[in-house]
Amino acid sequence: MRRIRLGMVGGGEGSFIGAVHRIAARMDNQFELLAGALSSDGRRAGSSAAALGIMADRSYASFEDMARTEAARDDGIEAVAIVTPNHLHAAPAIAFLNAGIHVICDKPLAATMAQAKAMKAASDESKAQFFLTHNYTGYPLIRQAREMVASGALGSLRVAQVEYAQDWLAEPVEATGNKQASWRTDPARAGAGAIGDIGTHAFNLLGFVSSDRVASLAADIQSFVDGRQVDDNAQIMLRFQSGARGSIWASQVAVGAENRLHLRLYGDKASLDWSHDNPNEMIFARLGEPRQILTRGGAGLGDGADRWTRVPPGHPEGYLEGFANLYQDIASVLMGKAGYSELPSIEAGMDGMWFITACQDSARRDAAWVLRDSDAS
Amino acid sequence: MRRIRLGMVGGGEGSFIGAVHRIAARMDNQFELLAGALSSDGRRAGSSAAALGIMADRSYASFEDMARTEAARDDGIEAVAIVTPNHLHAAPAIAFLNAGIHVICDKPLAATMAQAKAMKAASDESKAQFFLTHNYTGYPLIRQAREMVASGALGSLRVAQVEYAQDWLAEPVEATGNKQASWRTDPARAGAGAIGDIGTHAFNLLGFVSSDRVASLAADIQSFVDGRQVDDNAQIMLRFQSGARGSIWASQVAVGAENRLHLRLYGDKASLDWSHDNPNEMIFARLGEPRQILTRGGAGLGDGADRWTRVPPGHPEGYLEGFANLYQDIASVLMGKAGYSELPSIEAGMDGMWFITACQDSARRDAAWVLRDSDAS
Amino acid sequence: MRRIRLGMVGGGEGSFIGAVHRIAARMDNQFELLAGALSSDGRRAGSSAAALGIMADRSYASFEDMARTEAARDDGIEAVAIVTPNHLHAAPAIAFLNAGIHVICDKPLAATMAQAKAMKAASDESKAQFFLTHNYTGYPLIRQAREMVASGALGSLRVAQVEYAQDWLAEPVEATGNKQASWRTDPARAGAGAIGDIGTHAFNLLGFVSSDRVASLAADIQSFVDGRQVDDNAQIMLRFQSGARGSIWASQVAVGAENRLHLRLYGDKASLDWSHDNPNEMIFARLGEPRQILTRGGAGLGDGADRWTRVPPGHPEGYLEGFANLYQDIASVLMGKAGYSELPSIEAGMDGMWFITACQDSARRDAAWVLRDSDAS
Amino acid sequence: MRRIRLGMVGGGEGSFIGAVHRIAARMDNQFELLAGALSSDGRRAGSSAAALGIMADRSYASFEDMARTEAARDDGIEAVAIVTPNHLHAAPAIAFLNAGIHVICDKPLAATMAQAKAMKAASDESKAQFFLTHNYTGYPLIRQAREMVASGALGSLRVAQVEYAQDWLAEPVEATGNKQASWRTDPARAGAGAIGDIGTHAFNLLGFVSSDRVASLAADIQSFVDGRQVDDNAQIMLRFQSGARGSIWASQVAVGAENRLHLRLYGDKASLDWSHDNPNEMIFARLGEPRQILTRGGAGLGDGADRWTRVPPGHPEGYLEGFANLYQDIASVLMGKAGYSELPSIEAGMDGMWFITACQDSARRDAAWVLRDSDAS
Repeated sequence: MRRIRLGMVGGGEGSFIGAVHRIAARMDNQFELLAGALSSDGRRAGSSAAALGIMADRSYASFEDMARTEAARDDGIEAVAIVTPNHLHAAPAIAFLNAGIHVICDKPLAATMAQAKAMKAASDESKAQFFLTHNYTGYPLIRQAREMVASGALGSLRVAQVEYAQDWLAEPVEATGNKQASWRTDPARAGAGAIGDIGTHAFNLLGFVSSDRVASLAADIQSFVDGRQVDDNAQIMLRFQSGARGSIWASQVAVGAENRLHLRLYGDKASLDWSHDNPNEMIFARLGEPRQILTRGGAGLGDGADRWTRVPPGHPEGYLEGFANLYQDIASVLMGKAGYSELPSIEAGMDGMWFITACQDSARRDAAWVLRDSDAS
Repeated sequence: MRRIRLGMVGGGEGSFIGAVHRIAARMDNQFELLAGALSSDGRRAGSSAAALGIMADRSYASFEDMARTEAARDDGIEAVAIVTPNHLHAAPAIAFLNAGIHVICDKPLAATMAQAKAMKAASDESKAQFFLTHNYTGYPLIRQAREMVASGALGSLRVAQVEYAQDWLAEPVEATGNKQASWRTDPARAGAGAIGDIGTHAFNLLGFVSSDRVASLAADIQSFVDGRQVDDNAQIMLRFQSGARGSIWASQVAVGAENRLHLRLYGDKASLDWSHDNPNEMIFARLGEPRQILTRGGAGLGDGADRWTRVPPGHPEGYLEGFANLYQDIASVLMGKAGYSELPSIEAGMDGMWFITACQDSARRDAAWVLRDSDAS
Repeated sequence: MRRIRLGMVGGGEGSFIGAVHRIAARMDNQFELLAGALSSDGRRAGSSAAALGIMADRSYASFEDMARTEAARDDGIEAVAIVTPNHLHAAPAIAFLNAGIHVICDKPLAATMAQAKAMKAASDESKAQFFLTHNYTGYPLIRQAREMVASGALGSLRVAQVEYAQDWLAEPVEATGNKQASWRTDPARAGAGAIGDIGTHAFNLLGFVSSDRVASLAADIQSFVDGRQVDDNAQIMLRFQSGARGSIWASQVAVGAENRLHLRLYGDKASLDWSHDNPNEMIFARLGEPRQILTRGGAGLGDGADRWTRVPPGHPEGYLEGFANLYQDIASVLMGKAGYSELPSIEAGMDGMWFITACQDSARRDAAWVLRDSDAS
Repeated sequence: MRRIRLGMVGGGEGSFIGAVHRIAARMDNQFELLAGALSSDGRRAGSSAAALGIMADRSYASFEDMARTEAARDDGIEAVAIVTPNHLHAAPAIAFLNAGIHVICDKPLAATMAQAKAMKAASDESKAQFFLTHNYTGYPLIRQAREMVASGALGSLRVAQVEYAQDWLAEPVEATGNKQASWRTDPARAGAGAIGDIGTHAFNLLGFVSSDRVASLAADIQSFVDGRQVDDNAQIMLRFQSGARGSIWASQVAVGAENRLHLRLYGDKASLDWSHDNPNEMIFARLGEPRQILTRGGAGLGDGADRWTRVPPGHPEGYLEGFANLYQDIASVLMGKAGYSELPSIEAGMDGMWFITACQDSARRDAAWVLRDSDAS
């Protein structure tokens, strides 16, 4: 049994997304976590590593040291997961890419476009691969949706509505010492607020499922919470290359919404409606026919979505399984097997950075349209 | 038992909304339909009247004749329901207002702003009253929602999302001889497409429930169906006087949506979520507490919404009951009883006309913002 | 326009079901309420009649007087709605049947089997017709379900699950002076508790939709509320003539259930799932295919259910419209038009009485099976 | 980092539940799979072991050999997961218990009561522990429900309704070579059909959440599919020691139901409603208050359920996470940490065996009541 030798940057004790990456990597037993620079605090890095079973000599105080040392080992890591705050993606990603180690990076790509461009350049020059964990693309029904759209099941796309609503920032929790809130609302560390943290997921998902390209957007962005330094709500209108229209609503002040990502696509023949509240179901409506409830792995679906399910229909899978699907596919790619061809890459990361900056540009100009292809980025 | 003597203009055989108005007027037995100019086709007017039990001598070939004759009768009608296509609201409304007969007019107010202004002038000068049947304001839970917002239960409004989606115009049904589609997609008769037919409902509902005022809007409007002469889809961003933001999505090409009106309001303390799919339920979420399912007439509500229910909780009421609530309230007002103070009036009609024209203006200018109070209209 | 001349027994001020019958009769304008013995209290009878627009000379102090007098008038009532408590169904029903006046009787048929048999005898000998308002059979989708089952869309029936759950009797409200609770929990006036009040609806609905016949039942019945003299919860197992099995759960102490009637039928090819919570939708599942959401009047249905809808799909209809469908069909029958052939009749009433007594018999014998056809009733 | 050394009996290539146990054991990184007797087919055992990274010398051809050899090793397994068909639980369980190795056994306990009793005896005499994977007790909201009931939040229990419906055996798939169907419908290997496979889950869950004890049951059991040798549908009425009543419906022929486990408990103060369709939500209704939607880890819950969640509210967890919670708790117990005191044990297994045999007894006697404590088993 071959497993990919994995390292991790960030993700020390108390990290939310680091733990998620580790479970996702572990679920299908295709990765082995062997090295880490888990915290910039050396003591915490060490104790975190020990708790995770990482040998002391492979727990590093700095990612630079880790990249250099691991690259030199015969049994060095093959891939590294970068799960630090946004502003700390670029430097380690570049270091590992330069060292020939594959990078699995959390989203959004970076805190600034300059960082992102540097990452892109490093990726372009490296023989190592770069993956961005837009995990919602890992859901089997989302991949089913992509296939259905691509196969013409919806006809020509007309309207796409995506919402990503949360309420955990409805109050100024960054002022209470909440660590997650602290960096996610800090412009220097996060680069943006709701549009970066969740808006990029919505934008990515829309592109993934529709195979269409946003040609321009107009964004009205707010910071509703007093003293907040980043956006916490955004209304965004979209125009696609195909002529379709869409909207994204991203909010972290939507009281009552825990983590509601909701995607709807309307073509001239049919529509799809998927909500993260229950990711195991999707409504498919053909014009003039009763709506159908498609289920993950369930009746009437092609084999497509079955590849990424572990349990039969009626046995719910969730966030971690969707995330693990990315890791499973990454493992396949890295092992040279036939993998999934649509894994989010550095390009998806650059797209997300365009989205963030375009939203910010538009908002500054009173929600004027920002064109995709005239944009220097 | 006193009943209001009612007449009707339009609503002959085959009319959808005419039949709705009649059931709504009849449900609580406070109106008696006694006269009508039910069709511009004299033969059809007569047969329709006979089928409805209207005496032959009170079935009129023209609304002008009807207004004059009924006003002169001791037992003449006290109120008239106008249920013609949009471009035929103004002339009869003005005629009846001038004759001192109360007008109950379907929405939107008119096909053009010029017609609307003439109606407003006639209304201002008449002693008769004018009601506009924005029937969604008749739902008990919608009135409950209004009361909750007004009482501060939501705190300060931050975001309002309203959608009104249908799919009956997803294909060019106007080319098939469908009578409803024919006039509703004719610019001369309808004045606008989705924004007029359903967008005005969404806009009205938002104002009704929020008690907030839209200060400006930006609209991107499309006609997706080839050859269609009016809009069939609209994405609209809203800015409220209070600083709140919102969006309206109105579409008649949303495959799979029969008649989905969905309203969500997010304040800094709580939110409300109501969908017309099941108008007997509403989700109320206070920050940091479990979401609650409020039901029409059900546990934990004040007496407010109970006034307008006829059957106990768990016994669904629907579209006709909501519509009938308007008629019931109109009857109360006309009988001089304490009625409901928030019935949609000529002002609501003018607001809707502003909405239509502002959307059209904005769309012509690439979705530029149109301000409410600087707008000449 | 011809309308049926209608009278009413019971239904004075404060009555729930009397008001429901009146709205149902009025909705489609095919009945005219002209006479009443609305209360056994003469003063209340008179004031109730006046409030309803019944002429003073047709407001009667006794139903005997009303039956005799109306039968003798040329313009006397053609039909009478009986909306009294259960123990007061038989005497007026017999009086009107004997007088040749059609009877529209609320359910269950009677408080005792003896009363029911007397009603049956009177009905058999009368030229007048007898209708029982099992109103849930009036829902368009319920009729659609019946047609689908009859047409073989489900294959052979295997399992039928019906629930009717309420919570309004979860506490001893009969001790608080609640008028509805007072008679409905009085063995002498109601004859039974949950099994009579709501269990008979469930049993009737099951027979109506399945076209199958319950061959035997076993019932475990409880009175959970201290001091209650009738049952308030019942678990019932069913065996059908066809070999199918089923269960009914009827409860008036199911906290959180307002009025939840839920019907599911499973055949060897497909299943149906309908809940009164949203009577405008029904789930249809064919083996090996995605579940479908059928909607009232919506895509993919035959014309069957369309006959009984007043507004397009997406415009919810509810309890009153379903009830009104019975009145509409009764009017058609009484006018000699092609009506609906499956209106609940005296036979349905006798079936319901069998159900009540069989449940009581079974419960007394520790939930032993009671056979249908060996039963003396 | 200490991990429990784990072995597995059964679970070779193509096994459903073996893979589930492995993911569940792996998810929280507290087990290490080191040994296995994965198949009675030696070649398949070996290839399965290799695919799982089990060393060749610890892949055994027989569980007897495995128990003996592993018990003798210093680094031998500490626990074994038994994931064979029901009739093959007893022998390996007894062998490992006798060898002092903890047993984690799939449900139901055994195919016969005799096997079960032998297991009970072995467990009683062993210092090793025995766990039964009634995995639905691992869901955080199910544990929350148990705490709420125990704390009196529902008041006195009155009614409990549990359903477990599937449709995968709606046709005679055992005749098509389907391996799962083959043994699960074989009386010798499974011991029972739906009542054993899913009915025991329902029965266990009811006891777990209610902390009440079923005192007697009456069961009507069917085999709807021609030629089927075990039950595929069961209606069961329950009487609890407390006086509460309940019912279980277990079906594997319920067309349209993938794997629908639905639990409802009604007390005199409040009720709970949880469905496996979306295990991250539960409805809590207090009498006279709006229903609340409780969410896993969400607002308004105590800390209880938080212990077993890995991701924040709004990030769905599913079947595998619930299953992994059992493994996590087992690990805690085996490591001597404060674990969860309510893990399903040999007693739960014996309860399930009583349930199966009582259902079969009752069904043979025309659904007569079978008492718990007078029963010889």
